[in-house]
Amino acid sequence: MAKPAPKRRAPPTRPEQRAASPRRSPCPVAATLDLVGDRWTLLIVRDLMLGRARFRDFAASPEGIPTNILSDRLERLRLHGVIEQIPAPDGTKRLAYQLTKKGHSLRPVLAALRDWGLAWEKETRVLLVTK
Amino acid sequence: MAKPAPKRRAPPTRPEQRAASPRRSPCPVAATLDLVGDRWTLLIVRDLMLGRARFRDFAASPEGIPTNILSDRLERLRLHGVIEQIPAPDGTKRLAYQLTKKGHSLRPVLAALRDWGLAWEKETRVLLVTK
Repeated sequence: MAKPAPKRRAPPTRPEQRAASPRRSPCPVAATLDLVGDRWTLLIVRDLMLGRARFRDFAASPEGIPTNILSDRLERLRLHGVIEQIPAPDGTKRLAYQLTKKGHSLRPVLAALRDWGLAWEKETRVLLVTK
Repeated sequence: MAKPAPKRRAPPTRPEQRAASPRRSPCPVAATLDLVGDRWTLLIVRDLMLGRARFRDFAASPEGIPTNILSDRLERLRLHGVIEQIPAPDGTKRLAYQLTKKGHSLRPVLAALRDWGLAWEKETRVLLVTK
């Protein structure tokens, strides 16, 4: 007789674990989604790949990311080494962001998401161009 | 004088709107994330690609997806034509799921997420094998 599958529970997440981004499993897909698996994070990465660099640039993108979510995601991406802060290109004291090597490595993920959207989701088009 | 950028708010998501998946923008990346941009959906697609087919199979995956989220995501994927219901392979009356052509087309997205995880996230490994 086949052994019944063991019951699984989500691992406990104590606050100090959550801060350190607890890994849900050793699966690399799950680990990547732990960091970028939400509706907004990869849109910020998209904007950075298109040359956008400032908080207000990201906030002005057509999807209308709420600014509290934008702040949160930028900080997470920075903590995880996906982006880094740089002086603003216009010489003001405000900070800007750029992708690290780890961040640029997300390009195939973005390309695959774009290609799938173009193939299967009606009335999508590439409308954001490199600045 | 430059017009100030209009304030943007996340669109309200009442249940009936969620079913219709309002498009945030014509960007194909955003459109794809509207459907699969969360921590769980692509893990279900991963499981389906590995040959898992039944609710209890998905629930038994190591990430421990909560069953209410699993039900919700399966229904969304079905409504959007990413998966379809089939009779259970064991001949019982329970239903199983399989990827449609649209669902199988997500393979490059999964591959890119996996490759990035393997390259950048420590202690990840491919541990789920095709059934």
